[in-house]
Amino acid sequence: MTEIELIAHALETLGPYVMERRADREHLGISSKSHANDLLTEVDIETQRRIVALIGAAFPGDAIVGEEEGYARYPDEPGARAWIIDPIDGTQNFVRSLLPEFGISIAFARGNELLAGGVAFPGTGDVFLAERGAGASRNGRPIRVSAVASLALARVELDFDGPPKRQPTLDRARALLLNGGQVRCHCAAVLGLCSIASGDADAYVHVSLRPWDYAAGLLLAEEAGGASSDLSGHPVRVFGENDGLLVSNGRIHEELLTHLRRA
Amino acid sequence: MTEIELIAHALETLGPYVMERRADREHLGISSKSHANDLLTEVDIETQRRIVALIGAAFPGDAIVGEEEGYARYPDEPGARAWIIDPIDGTQNFVRSLLPEFGISIAFARGNELLAGGVAFPGTGDVFLAERGAGASRNGRPIRVSAVASLALARVELDFDGPPKRQPTLDRARALLLNGGQVRCHCAAVLGLCSIASGDADAYVHVSLRPWDYAAGLLLAEEAGGASSDLSGHPVRVFGENDGLLVSNGRIHEELLTHLRRA
Repeated sequence: MTEIELIAHALETLGPYVMERRADREHLGISSKSHANDLLTEVDIETQRRIVALIGAAFPGDAIVGEEEGYARYPDEPGARAWIIDPIDGTQNFVRSLLPEFGISIAFARGNELLAGGVAFPGTGDVFLAERGAGASRNGRPIRVSAVASLALARVELDFDGPPKRQPTLDRARALLLNGGQVRCHCAAVLGLCSIASGDADAYVHVSLRPWDYAAGLLLAEEAGGASSDLSGHPVRVFGENDGLLVSNGRIHEELLTHLRRA
Repeated sequence: MTEIELIAHALETLGPYVMERRADREHLGISSKSHANDLLTEVDIETQRRIVALIGAAFPGDAIVGEEEGYARYPDEPGARAWIIDPIDGTQNFVRSLLPEFGISIAFARGNELLAGGVAFPGTGDVFLAERGAGASRNGRPIRVSAVASLALARVELDFDGPPKRQPTLDRARALLLNGGQVRCHCAAVLGLCSIASGDADAYVHVSLRPWDYAAGLLLAEEAGGASSDLSGHPVRVFGENDGLLVSNGRIHEELLTHLRRA
């Protein structure tokens, strides 16, 4: 089994499980925030456990970096084989949203080089896959970024994240908020990043993200013809400190950086 | 046939037509903005024509207010029977989006009093209906707004709209952007408003909307137990000039107004 085969298998297996748990939630009519968060954590953790078990069986000894259960630390060894997991990206949306705005994200890297990645949207059944150098696909069909060539026509995806990051987001992304063709915020990085890969959005901006939020989505966007950097224009180091994240269709990347770089 | 029966019938009939046209778009692989907009306008206009024909047959002589084809004017006579139509709210999303973030919106009013309304999300099959005084439903089951009681825990839906409205939105909604529990933007008023009605969001803010954008969604949110006003706290006049729009679960309405009212 190759790395991308493991990713595809995990995403296809776990999508139905996640939706089954979400249907339960709706049946139970959970409404209070604390209870909802409890359920969420349970599904989050169980999903991550199942992914970790699949990896452990196929690639024992690989490092695992995930959002839950003590996996939120980076590999010590440079160039290590590492798996980067977000069992449910768009956590609040999993519990509360009319549309299923959440996804499962799994990526494989050697050191800072992303080599394979996939995102599943269990609510629609969409599965996105990419291998470094081999292109990106949606449900088995090749996908390509948009040809939109200016900020004024661009669909910009932005995550405001929690209140501590709001002022930096407003400051840094000000020109994009004022002049982007459309501004959309889903509170789920996978949705913004896969929308770039599928040609449905043109840029995604975040002032600070952890690798599990973007690893698979970034590779998908790049392999669909897009570009990535931090907000200062430097290459993204998956396990380093970055000045935020900009992923785009490539065509508008430089124009966006002129607005996003620190003055 | 009552007004709400006509609305339910129109939404159920037109949803499949809209999705059929959207599937065509995907099959044709349209990517350029101008072509995409042409297709959109065609589906928009044809959907509106079909709604207008249903209304004309059942309630001849009623005023019709819609986004397309010269219907974008308000009735002259106070207290007139009027239908308020947005054939596809979330127009760009219809053409470009991973998730089906668009809806069909139909409302019935006498003068400024909204009496019946419905929204269909053809991409998920969801149909929301409400009659004044009789509650709101989603796919036939009663729905209720959330119990979230503070801005800090609230999911706030906000539309940035086109660039001319961006600075006013940033200025007016600043405290909500900085302090809301979560901030989400879908570029489709029906999605924000129906999310309040279903308990999946807690507030929706826009600095300027036309009646076809919000008429049905506002009634749905109110009938699910929510509240509405303009951003200064005055009642919304469907066919008047309003200082923007705030719709919420009711519990946080006053707290939000303290931030949204002009200083």
